[in-house]
Amino acid sequence: MNYVVYGMATSGNCHKIKMALENLRVPYQWREINTLEGETRSATFLAMNPNGKVPVLAIDDTTFLPESNAILWFLGEETPLVPRDRLERAQVLRWMFFEQYSHETAVAVARYIRVFLKEHDNPRLPDLEKRGYAALGVMDRHLEARHYFVGETLSIADLALFAYTHKADDAGLDLAPYPAVTTWLDRVAAAPGVSTMPSP
Amino acid sequence: MNYVVYGMATSGNCHKIKMALENLRVPYQWREINTLEGETRSATFLAMNPNGKVPVLAIDDTTFLPESNAILWFLGEETPLVPRDRLERAQVLRWMFFEQYSHETAVAVARYIRVFLKEHDNPRLPDLEKRGYAALGVMDRHLEARHYFVGETLSIADLALFAYTHKADDAGLDLAPYPAVTTWLDRVAAAPGVSTMPSP
Repeated sequence: MNYVVYGMATSGNCHKIKMALENLRVPYQWREINTLEGETRSATFLAMNPNGKVPVLAIDDTTFLPESNAILWFLGEETPLVPRDRLERAQVLRWMFFEQYSHETAVAVARYIRVFLKEHDNPRLPDLEKRGYAALGVMDRHLEARHYFVGETLSIADLALFAYTHKADDAGLDLAPYPAVTTWLDRVAAAPGVSTMPSP
Repeated sequence: MNYVVYGMATSGNCHKIKMALENLRVPYQWREINTLEGETRSATFLAMNPNGKVPVLAIDDTTFLPESNAILWFLGEETPLVPRDRLERAQVLRWMFFEQYSHETAVAVARYIRVFLKEHDNPRLPDLEKRGYAALGVMDRHLEARHYFVGETLSIADLALFAYTHKADDAGLDLAPYPAVTTWLDRVAAAPGVSTMPSP
């Protein structure tokens, strides 16, 4: 059977999976899940992911894999999207853990508050923006002398970080002070299968 | 040269690395970093990890790997701590991303507020505790019919989740309603190299 992705098209964590599958030309089906209407809290969904979050990759009728960056690793291993060198593999994971801990928790949350909740005066925004800019600064310094996050080719680390960074404007973040990031975004955007995430 | 770990002994993220190295009987040196006194903000430290966080693994004089769970993967690949099966490898990462996104951000932060800042009335605590109990509930249901998080043996996913879970009391969380978690904690605690994290 084809893989089935349970995801929300306007979620960066879900968009990562679409880009990886399309880059690798792996056939899949997409089942749209509306997290805003509680669809990740149904008994059916919780049986696939007890943590109640999208995306989930259905590998077969009884095998489910949650966590966007774990899905990227599953799809990418033994393809050009994951390096073979042991240290480079760990560096790919280093940037994906950075993405989930230091980047997504700021940029994606600020985007959620602004674009989904439309709360432009939410008191959490200043701290989230400060942390978002800190993450962009770390990325910019790393990319100053590099084309991609790890090694000389596109990897799942680039796809993971592209997902919310290319929508930084949604989060109220200005990318102009981060020229290495914007150059890298253009480079990643030109890769096969990479696409802009739809707006809600 | 031996690996050098830059870490703080009372940090769960750092304690993970110590347990993995001792389980694998890999020689290393430990350099204690006091994050509370700003030592992760020095120019020397930021040259190793621009994100300014411990732990960092120095692989040689010029090669540095940050992010606790990326370090676990680097140390564990091709050892019994990381499975060989593709799906099981992805499931190990699934639980490690769960740890960093849904568990550490609640349990470790509540512990930090209570044990390091000693702010037992901090207004963030109720929400952190709610999220911490949700994470423990997900773990408990998963462990009901299992000995370890993935497969039939100890993996880096167990070490990652053990780090802050065995100190849940520090975070103000009661483990009594989670019997599968406490049984699993005892099982992991008995494994070679696994140790209790020191209190601040």
